[in-house]
Amino acid sequence: MIQTDICIIGAGPVGLFAVFEAGLLKMRCHLIDALPKIGGQLTEIYPRKPIYDIPGYPTILAEDLIKNLMEQIEPFKPSFTLGERVEKFVKNEDGSFNLTTSAGTEVSCKVVVIAGGLGCFEPRKPEIPQLEQYEGKGVTYMVINPETYRNKRVVLAGGGDSALDWTVFLADVAAELTLVHRSESFRGAPDSVEKVMELAKEKKIRLMLKSNINAIEGNGKLTGVSITDQHKSVQTIPTDYFIPLFGLSPKLGPLENWGLNLDKSAITVDTFDYSTSVPGVYAIGDINSYPGKLKLILCGFHEAALMAQSAYKVVYPNQKYSLKYTTVNGIQSF
Amino acid sequence: MIQTDICIIGAGPVGLFAVFEAGLLKMRCHLIDALPKIGGQLTEIYPRKPIYDIPGYPTILAEDLIKNLMEQIEPFKPSFTLGERVEKFVKNEDGSFNLTTSAGTEVSCKVVVIAGGLGCFEPRKPEIPQLEQYEGKGVTYMVINPETYRNKRVVLAGGGDSALDWTVFLADVAAELTLVHRSESFRGAPDSVEKVMELAKEKKIRLMLKSNINAIEGNGKLTGVSITDQHKSVQTIPTDYFIPLFGLSPKLGPLENWGLNLDKSAITVDTFDYSTSVPGVYAIGDINSYPGKLKLILCGFHEAALMAQSAYKVVYPNQKYSLKYTTVNGIQSF
Ligand SMILES: Cc1cc2nc3c(=O)[nH]c(=O)nc-3n(C[C@H](O)[C@H](O)[C@H](O)COP(=O)(O)OP(=O)(O)OC[C@H]3O[C@@H](n4cnc5c(N)ncnc54)[C@H](O)[C@@H]3O)c2cc1C
Ligand SMILES: Cc1cc2nc3c(=O)[nH]c(=O)nc-3n(C[C@H](O)[C@H](O)[C@H](O)COP(=O)(O)OP(=O)(O)OC[C@H]3O[C@@H](n4cnc5c(N)ncnc54)[C@H](O)[C@@H]3O)c2cc1C
Repeated sequence: MIQTDICIIGAGPVGLFAVFEAGLLKMRCHLIDALPKIGGQLTEIYPRKPIYDIPGYPTILAEDLIKNLMEQIEPFKPSFTLGERVEKFVKNEDGSFNLTTSAGTEVSCKVVVIAGGLGCFEPRKPEIPQLEQYEGKGVTYMVINPETYRNKRVVLAGGGDSALDWTVFLADVAAELTLVHRSESFRGAPDSVEKVMELAKEKKIRLMLKSNINAIEGNGKLTGVSITDQHKSVQTIPTDYFIPLFGLSPKLGPLENWGLNLDKSAITVDTFDYSTSVPGVYAIGDINSYPGKLKLILCGFHEAALMAQSAYKVVYPNQKYSLKYTTVNGIQSF
Repeated sequence: MIQTDICIIGAGPVGLFAVFEAGLLKMRCHLIDALPKIGGQLTEIYPRKPIYDIPGYPTILAEDLIKNLMEQIEPFKPSFTLGERVEKFVKNEDGSFNLTTSAGTEVSCKVVVIAGGLGCFEPRKPEIPQLEQYEGKGVTYMVINPETYRNKRVVLAGGGDSALDWTVFLADVAAELTLVHRSESFRGAPDSVEKVMELAKEKKIRLMLKSNINAIEGNGKLTGVSITDQHKSVQTIPTDYFIPLFGLSPKLGPLENWGLNLDKSAITVDTFDYSTSVPGVYAIGDINSYPGKLKLILCGFHEAALMAQSAYKVVYPNQKYSLKYTTVNGIQSF
């Protein structure tokens, strides 16, 4: 059981900055994110794109903002659980909370800060009979560790950057690689398309355009996929892994059932301190809703600052606090 | 008469960033500040000190933050009136506003954004009979253009950095320079103190410690000051200028009488859009007050963003607007 002052759900920019504001007030944080990497939407959707409206940065790459935030919170030594989704939420008699992740990790804390953005990124799954039965048995929707696929047979499906990039990367790793795409043009970066075409010409990969996967074959474990090709003929490709890469779409997910007041798929909060309807639970960043709300990174930073003032009273109920400027007081690391 | 969409009172960090948020929504800004330089408290009080709680900057010097903000708003070409205080505020029948400064500059605008911080920095004036009568006639509280004092006789008073720095600087400029300080130790940087002591030893300046100015002498124009020295003997020092440098302290000033709802010396606002009690007038940054308010730079940035959304409806009453990410849409400069 991990013990901490504040458990932050979501390691996007807002969850990360909350560590800083909490740290200034001597509160320790543990962060949990369903994704294997920190940074939320910035890392998952647009790491190499420039952002122009971070105050004081005329322009900054999304991934650099995350890197800088990590450096800024370093003195407060946050701990992380990555690649696990928070599923269960229990408020104890004494006001503390217990959270449990998809992998069974348990966290006990005095304050919960939900910085869950648009929710968990969930893979868009193609409609193929029995697909979900084979999840973890050869079917997966994200490449987490490429080494898993060394000297294995792999079928990838999709036509965006993710499918193209992993095709290029895994061509050298897998024993045999097939890319299946329903159209004949790709939506990804032109140079990635070119590389994939090149690999196909050199027969380093099997490229099947205007083709669709229509069935999974196996006996408890995946053994092959059945594909309808551009001539409408059906064939079975034997494979160890099938990885459909049709993008990720965020879902509020388990948070929806925690008894918090909601406004569509956002958590309603009080702008005094961004507290939710459950005392001790705060919601900041894209996941919250209040009159005037803008889903901007800079707004989440402000919300984190006000949240921390209020959380302080929960974590240290008997202590008095007065705001001190960092310029005057510096950073007192843990 | 200057015509603009938004007139921003105060060119501190928050007023500056408001130009950016307004610019994204195609609104032009004119800024007015009573100080001769932009940057508000950061420039006036702590330009060379590091700030640690600007999100994404583990540390940044106050003056560098202002420099970066100026670069960030450059595409939106704001105009400035510096060294003038906004004194008069009139709301016209058609909902527009006219503002007038201490120097008579007039601005006509559709929206007023008060980003006045702690108010105007006003000089702390020593209690000397008739002092105010000689203001502008030899008595002044700020050195704006050092060339004014070339080959003139100058008496400075004070014991802080400002008095020390100007003594060092003006020693070479003035025909004759006297520094009067009531104590025998200084509050300024040790190396500035050392330089002043050195100048006194070399007889390049006249240094009078444990001394006080007790009277002004003149005939409409200043001719000298009367000083009680450490032996309690009184002498007159003939001079062209007398500059007491006892620091600046902020005062809400004229804003107090514009009919806005106030909470002590702050303007009460609605957190929906940081609007004041007068439609079309917003207050952001240190100058506003609402439940949970923190006088932090990062909070002012958020307030600027929400204000701009609301101001848009005033400036463009018939147009619809939907939020676009800068990453997706870029910056459309004027
Ligand atoms: C293409 C694009 C461009 C953008 N451009 C800009 C821009 O220019 N300026 C700007 O200000 N904003 C921009 N945004 C919006 C910005 O990315 C978001 O405002 C920001 O990411 C919100 O940060 P956050 O920390 O609240 O949430 P997120 O970044 O969404 O992070 C939330 C994290 O919480 C995790 N999570 C959710 N639920 C759970 C759970 N139950 N268990 C475990 N983990 C969970 C998710 O996996 C995710 O990593 C853009 C967004 C996109 C998509
Ligand atoms: C020593 C010190 C350290 C600090 N450290 C930090 C820190 O680490 N982090 C942090 O977030 N904050 C810190 N602050 C606070 C921070 O400086 C303020 O929050 C910030 O300056 C507020 O910005 P602003 O733009 O609202 O106002 P200001 O910076 O105060 O600027 C307001 C401007 O408005 C002008 N003005 C006012 N009235 C009028 C008028 N009638 N006509 C014309 N002009 C007018 C003033 O001349 C001034 O230039 C610190 C402050 C001090 C003094």
